[in-house]
Amino acid sequence: MVGGGQGAFIGGVHRIAARLDGCYDLVAGAFASDAARAHASAAELGVDPERSYADFREMAKVEAARDDGIDVVSIVTPNHLHGAIAEAFLAEDISVICDKPMTATLAQAESLIAAADASNGHFFLTHNYTGYPMIRQARQMVAEGALGDVRMVEANYLQDWLSDAPAPDNKQAKWRTDPAQAGGGAIGDIGTHAHNLSCFVLGSRAKSVRAHLSSHVKGRLVDDDARVRLQFESGACGYIWASQVAIGNENNLTLAVYGSKASIKWAQEQPNQLWFTKAGEAPQLITRGGAAAHPAAAAVSRIPAGHPEGYLEAFATLYREAAAVMMGQDIDGSAIVGLQEGLDGVSFVDACQRSSNDDAAWTDL
Amino acid sequence: MVGGGQGAFIGGVHRIAARLDGCYDLVAGAFASDAARAHASAAELGVDPERSYADFREMAKVEAARDDGIDVVSIVTPNHLHGAIAEAFLAEDISVICDKPMTATLAQAESLIAAADASNGHFFLTHNYTGYPMIRQARQMVAEGALGDVRMVEANYLQDWLSDAPAPDNKQAKWRTDPAQAGGGAIGDIGTHAHNLSCFVLGSRAKSVRAHLSSHVKGRLVDDDARVRLQFESGACGYIWASQVAIGNENNLTLAVYGSKASIKWAQEQPNQLWFTKAGEAPQLITRGGAAAHPAAAAVSRIPAGHPEGYLEAFATLYREAAAVMMGQDIDGSAIVGLQEGLDGVSFVDACQRSSNDDAAWTDL
Amino acid sequence: MVGGGQGAFIGGVHRIAARLDGCYDLVAGAFASDAARAHASAAELGVDPERSYADFREMAKVEAARDDGIDVVSIVTPNHLHGAIAEAFLAEDISVICDKPMTATLAQAESLIAAADASNGHFFLTHNYTGYPMIRQARQMVAEGALGDVRMVEANYLQDWLSDAPAPDNKQAKWRTDPAQAGGGAIGDIGTHAHNLSCFVLGSRAKSVRAHLSSHVKGRLVDDDARVRLQFESGACGYIWASQVAIGNENNLTLAVYGSKASIKWAQEQPNQLWFTKAGEAPQLITRGGAAAHPAAAAVSRIPAGHPEGYLEAFATLYREAAAVMMGQDIDGSAIVGLQEGLDGVSFVDACQRSSNDDAAWTDL
Amino acid sequence: MVGGGQGAFIGGVHRIAARLDGCYDLVAGAFASDAARAHASAAELGVDPERSYADFREMAKVEAARDDGIDVVSIVTPNHLHGAIAEAFLAEDISVICDKPMTATLAQAESLIAAADASNGHFFLTHNYTGYPMIRQARQMVAEGALGDVRMVEANYLQDWLSDAPAPDNKQAKWRTDPAQAGGGAIGDIGTHAHNLSCFVLGSRAKSVRAHLSSHVKGRLVDDDARVRLQFESGACGYIWASQVAIGNENNLTLAVYGSKASIKWAQEQPNQLWFTKAGEAPQLITRGGAAAHPAAAAVSRIPAGHPEGYLEAFATLYREAAAVMMGQDIDGSAIVGLQEGLDGVSFVDACQRSSNDDAAWTDL
Repeated sequence: MVGGGQGAFIGGVHRIAARLDGCYDLVAGAFASDAARAHASAAELGVDPERSYADFREMAKVEAARDDGIDVVSIVTPNHLHGAIAEAFLAEDISVICDKPMTATLAQAESLIAAADASNGHFFLTHNYTGYPMIRQARQMVAEGALGDVRMVEANYLQDWLSDAPAPDNKQAKWRTDPAQAGGGAIGDIGTHAHNLSCFVLGSRAKSVRAHLSSHVKGRLVDDDARVRLQFESGACGYIWASQVAIGNENNLTLAVYGSKASIKWAQEQPNQLWFTKAGEAPQLITRGGAAAHPAAAAVSRIPAGHPEGYLEAFATLYREAAAVMMGQDIDGSAIVGLQEGLDGVSFVDACQRSSNDDAAWTDL
Repeated sequence: MVGGGQGAFIGGVHRIAARLDGCYDLVAGAFASDAARAHASAAELGVDPERSYADFREMAKVEAARDDGIDVVSIVTPNHLHGAIAEAFLAEDISVICDKPMTATLAQAESLIAAADASNGHFFLTHNYTGYPMIRQARQMVAEGALGDVRMVEANYLQDWLSDAPAPDNKQAKWRTDPAQAGGGAIGDIGTHAHNLSCFVLGSRAKSVRAHLSSHVKGRLVDDDARVRLQFESGACGYIWASQVAIGNENNLTLAVYGSKASIKWAQEQPNQLWFTKAGEAPQLITRGGAAAHPAAAAVSRIPAGHPEGYLEAFATLYREAAAVMMGQDIDGSAIVGLQEGLDGVSFVDACQRSSNDDAAWTDL
Repeated sequence: MVGGGQGAFIGGVHRIAARLDGCYDLVAGAFASDAARAHASAAELGVDPERSYADFREMAKVEAARDDGIDVVSIVTPNHLHGAIAEAFLAEDISVICDKPMTATLAQAESLIAAADASNGHFFLTHNYTGYPMIRQARQMVAEGALGDVRMVEANYLQDWLSDAPAPDNKQAKWRTDPAQAGGGAIGDIGTHAHNLSCFVLGSRAKSVRAHLSSHVKGRLVDDDARVRLQFESGACGYIWASQVAIGNENNLTLAVYGSKASIKWAQEQPNQLWFTKAGEAPQLITRGGAAAHPAAAAVSRIPAGHPEGYLEAFATLYREAAAVMMGQDIDGSAIVGLQEGLDGVSFVDACQRSSNDDAAWTDL
Repeated sequence: MVGGGQGAFIGGVHRIAARLDGCYDLVAGAFASDAARAHASAAELGVDPERSYADFREMAKVEAARDDGIDVVSIVTPNHLHGAIAEAFLAEDISVICDKPMTATLAQAESLIAAADASNGHFFLTHNYTGYPMIRQARQMVAEGALGDVRMVEANYLQDWLSDAPAPDNKQAKWRTDPAQAGGGAIGDIGTHAHNLSCFVLGSRAKSVRAHLSSHVKGRLVDDDARVRLQFESGACGYIWASQVAIGNENNLTLAVYGSKASIKWAQEQPNQLWFTKAGEAPQLITRGGAAAHPAAAAVSRIPAGHPEGYLEAFATLYREAAAVMMGQDIDGSAIVGLQEGLDGVSFVDACQRSSNDDAAWTDL
C-alpha cells in the first residue's frame, strides 16, 4: 500500500475491504512521504519494518526484486500522486489497485495508460459504489431492457462538510480544496463518482458535457457545486449534481434512470433497496436478497435477505471486543455479552414457554 | 470453528466478522459432524487437513495439546449442541465465542456456567445486534438519563420466511422448526435477540414475563409468533413481538424506548439512524457519524459520517473481483473498473472544467 | 349541532367535513351548555340567534316542531353526553351523526339502541378513519381474499400529548382524563379507533379480549397505555396498542394485516399509501389514485392520482385569503398571489422557451 | 365559475376549496363553451338555469347588471382563455380568481394587467402549493434568516402521466400537449409551479434563466422535460426540473433551500413535514402542528398537530355517505358505521376494562 498512514481516511477503508474476503495480506507499504510517519504507521499495521518504505519508487524496486515481493499495490494517496505511483509499480509488473480518480490531469492519465500497456500488471480503479449489489442489479436490468429505451439518467452526490471554510487543521479538507493536489473540487472528488455510476449502470459512455461549476465559500479555489448535463453515446441524456455545500446531506448519493417503459431509483442511504416502477403499475421495492433480486446482486452479497450490510460490521465489533478482552487490553467491557446474558436468554425462552403453557400467567425468569 | 461447513449460513458470517478487523486467523475446525463434509469444508476454507476434525471433542483435546493450538473457538452449530461443545473447549482452557442462544435448555445453560467457572477460558455470546453503533448510542443515552425514567421498551423482530410450510430441502428451516434442535421457534430464534437488545439498551434485566406463543402453519411443532410482556428490574415495562409469519418483513428488527422525558426509535433496516424526540420538541435524526453522534457510537464505527456501513462491503467486492482477475479465475469481468473508466473519469472532470470556463458550452470529452 | 362551541376541537372538524361536499347547511345548534357561550358561538358561526339553544332537549323539541326544522343533528360533546343527546333527537325522528364513542357506558349504549329502534331517524357514528381511500381499499382486498386467510391484525394508535400531567387550563386534556366524562382513557379515546378500524378492514367482529391497561403519570385516574389481544369471529388474532404517553408520536395510527398469502400495511402519516406484499414477491406500494388503486378507493377520492389530500386544503387557504381581501379584512396580504406573480410566471415560461431555443443562453425574464 | 363542466378536473377542486371554509356560494357559471354541456353541468351543480351561461362575455354583462350578481368569478378553463375571460369580468368590476398560469402568452398577460389596473375588481392566481402550512413556514424561516444567506434553491416537479403518447380520448392530455391551448408543455403546466414556489419561499424574483426544454415522445409538439437554471434578484441560484415523463412519479413536487447556515427540505408527498438542518447539528423534523411549528403555519391549519390534512376528507366522506343514506340514495351501505359498531366499540372498552381488572383474563365482549 502506498499512502494510508496515520491521519488518512481512505487507506483504512481499503485495508478492511482487502481483508473482508480473505484474499489479501498486507505485507509492505510506503504509508507516508515522511519517513518517521511512514514507519510509525507500518508498525501500527503490523508490517515488517524491513518492508516499510518512505519512498514509493524504492518500494516498487525492492519489492519487485524480492522472491516474496508483493503481487499488487493499493494506492490511496492524494489524487495528484496516483499516476506517478501507479507507473512506478506497473513498470515492475506489479498490479495496481488505485483509489479514484485515476489521476489529477489528463496528461497524467495518458501517461499512465501507456505505462499500463507496456506492463504485465493489471490496473484496477476502486469506483467503490459499483460494488453495491443493487447497483449491479440496476445495471443488469438496464442491460436486459427492463426499462425500455433509457431517456434520462440522474445522479446526485450531495455532501455538506465544506459548506463553510474548513478548520485549518482539517487535513482531508486541505488537500481536497487545493487545486494542485485534487485536480478539481466537488466535480473531481464526488462528481466523478456520479459520472462513473451513471456510465456503469447505463452501460454507455458520456461523450459530451455542459457544466456549471461554482463556488459558494469565500476564498475557495476549487468548485464546491457542480451541475452537469451529459450526452451519452447511447442517446440518453444525463444530469449530475455534485455539491459539498448542501447542508443536511452527509453522503447522499442517489441514482435514477428513466426509460420509455420503466424507471429505477436507488439511494446510498438505503443501499439494499431498489425502486422499480413499470409505466402504469404500482412501484415495487426490490431488496438485495428479496424475491425480485437478480443473480447479479446475489453474486456480490455475503449475507441472506433482509440483513442490512452493516450487519457484518456489527458482528465484527463483537469479535474485535472479544479479541481485546482475550489479549488483556484495558477496554470498557460493559458491552461484552457473555455467560450472564446467555443464561438470561435461555431463561427468557424457558419462562416464555412456561408462561404460554400456563395461559400467559406472569412467570419469573 | 465448530460448525459452519458447506450449506451453513451463520458460519460464513462469523468468519467474515472475525477477519474484518484482522484480529483472528482461522487455523482449525470441526466444520461438520459428517467427516467427509467436514474435510471438504476445511479444504475450501484453506484449513490445514491435519487440523480438520470430524469430532469437536477430539478437536478440543488435540488443539489444546499443540504448541500452536487455537486460543479461541467459534461455535456456529444448531442450538442444542452449543452447550456441550463450549464445555469441551472450556475444559481445555480454550476461550469460546458462541452464536446465540447460549444453549437450547436451561439445564444445559447451568451446566455450561459451571464449566466456565472452572475454566481459564473466556466465554462470549454473539448477540450481534448489540454491535451496531446506534445501539451503543441508544444504550449510552438511556444510561445518561437523556430519556428520563424509562417507562416502556418495545422490541419487534419480524420475519416472513416461515409464513408457509418450508420446502423439504431447506436445511435452515428444518433445524429451526425442530423442537429438539432449536429449543423454541420464533421465541428462541429471534425473540431472544429482541430480549437481549431490550436488556442491553435498558441496562436492566427482565425479571418476569407473560407470553403468548402461537403457531400459524399447520403441522408446525414450534411457535412462529410470540408476544411477550416483560417486567424489568428497573421498573420499566417491555413488550416483544417476534414473528416468522409476518409477510412483507425480511429481518425487520426495531426498538423503541419511551421515557418520561424523551424517546428513541431505531430500526435495523436503517441501522445508521436513531430518532430522538424530547417531549415538546421537534424529532431529531441522529446519524452514526453525524453532529449528534455519541463517542460510544464513534468507538465502534470504521468509516466517517454519512457512508452506510455496507460501503465497506461494496469496496470489498471490488477487491475480491480484482483478486479473481489477478489469479486468472474465469469470472465475468464486465463489472471491473479499470484504465478506460479511469481515463473517462479524468476526461470528464477536464471537460466539465473546460465547459464551465466556456459559459457552459457543449464540450466533448 | 350539539357541542362544538368556542374552545372545542372536534366540532370544527365536523363542520368542515359537512361542508366539503356541499350536502349540509348548519342552521341550528346548542353549541355549549353555558347559554352565553352557546349564543356567542352561534353568532360566530352565522347561525340565526332564534335557532341557537342552550339546552339540547329544547333544541330537539323546537326544531322538530318547525317546518324548516333540522333533518339531522351532529353530536360533538364529551362522550358521557352522547347517549342522552342522541336519544332526545331520535325521539323526534331527527337523524343523528355522532362522534365516537357512541356512549361512555354499556348501559347508555343499550338505552340508545332501544331509542333508535323506536325512531324513524338514522344513527351514524363518525369513526372517521374508515373514510380514508386506502382503508377502503384494504377492506376490499381482505374481502376479496387477496391476503388469503387472515392470521393477525395489528392496530397501533400512538400519541404523546399526555406523556406528562397536562396544564390545568387544557380543556381537552381535562375531560379526556376524567373517568366520569370520558368513560376510559387511551382505551376509550383512541383504542376504540384501533378496534373499529381492525373490525372494519377485517369484516369481522371481535368476540373476546385480554387487556392490560396501565397509567404512567402520577395521579392520573384513567389508563394512558392499553395493550389488548383480541379474538375475532373470523378466527383471526388481533393486537391493539393505544398509548398517549409515547413521546415522538403525534397521531401515529397504523394498521397491518397478515394473511396466509399476503400482507398489507398502512399508516395515517402517509394516508395515500398502502403497502401490499404477496408471499415470495417484491413489496408493492399502492397509492390512492395510482395504477393498482381499487374502485373502492376511487369512489371516495376527490382528486386524481398523486395529489396528497391536503392539496384541497392548501387550495382552500387561497380561497379563504382571497375572500378576506375582497371583504376588506385587515390581513397580512404578503402571501397573496396576484398579477405580479402571474406576469412573472408567464414571463418565466417565455424566457425558458427563448433560452432553450437559443442553445440555453442566459435570458432575462 | 367559467369552465369546470363535465369532464373537467380542476373545476371540481376549486369548488371544494371554495366551500371548505364556508366563504363562497356557487350561484352562476359558464361551465362549458358548448351550451348543452354548460347547462347540463349547471344542473348537476345546482345552479339556477337562469344563471347558467354558454358565453362568458354574456355572463359577465348579465351578472354585473343583477342586484344579486356575483362578486367574484373563478376561471378554470384551458390556459389560452384565461386572459380574455379575466378581462371580461374585470371590465365589469367583478373580481377574478384564476387558475394558473395567468395567461398563455406574454402579450395576453400585459393586456390583462392593463385591464386589472383599470378595474375595481381584484385578481387572484391560485398557485395552490403556496397554501401548504409548511410552505408558509419555510417562507417565514427564510425571511427571518434561519438559513443565513440563501445560496441555492432546488424545485423539482416530476410526473409520469405523459411518459407515453396519451390515449386519443384523454381530454386533459389533449389540451395540455397542444401548444396553442397550453402555451408550453411541462414548463408551463408544472414548471410554473416550481418557479412560483421558489420565488414564494425565497421572497425574491427570478431575473434570468438558462433553460433546456426537451421532448421524449415521438410526435409531441411541446416540451415534456424542462431543466432551468435561474438567477434570483437576491443573488441566489435556482434550479428547476419539471418532467412529465419521469415514470414512478405521480405529482412529486419537492423543494430544498440551501443557505450558508442551514437548509430546509419539503416534499408534497409528506406535506406536513419540513426538514430543517443547521450546519453541524442533527436534522430536525418539523411537523405542521408540532413543537417547532411557526405561527405562519398554524394560521393556515384547520386541525391540530399530527392529523394529516386528508383527515378532513376522510371525515367528509362519512358525512357524504350519511347524506346519501338519509336522502334514500341507492348506495352500497356496507361501509356505514352505525349502531352496531357503536355498541361494539362501547362493549370493547368495557371488556378491556373488565379484563384488565381481572389480571388480563380472556373476557368476552
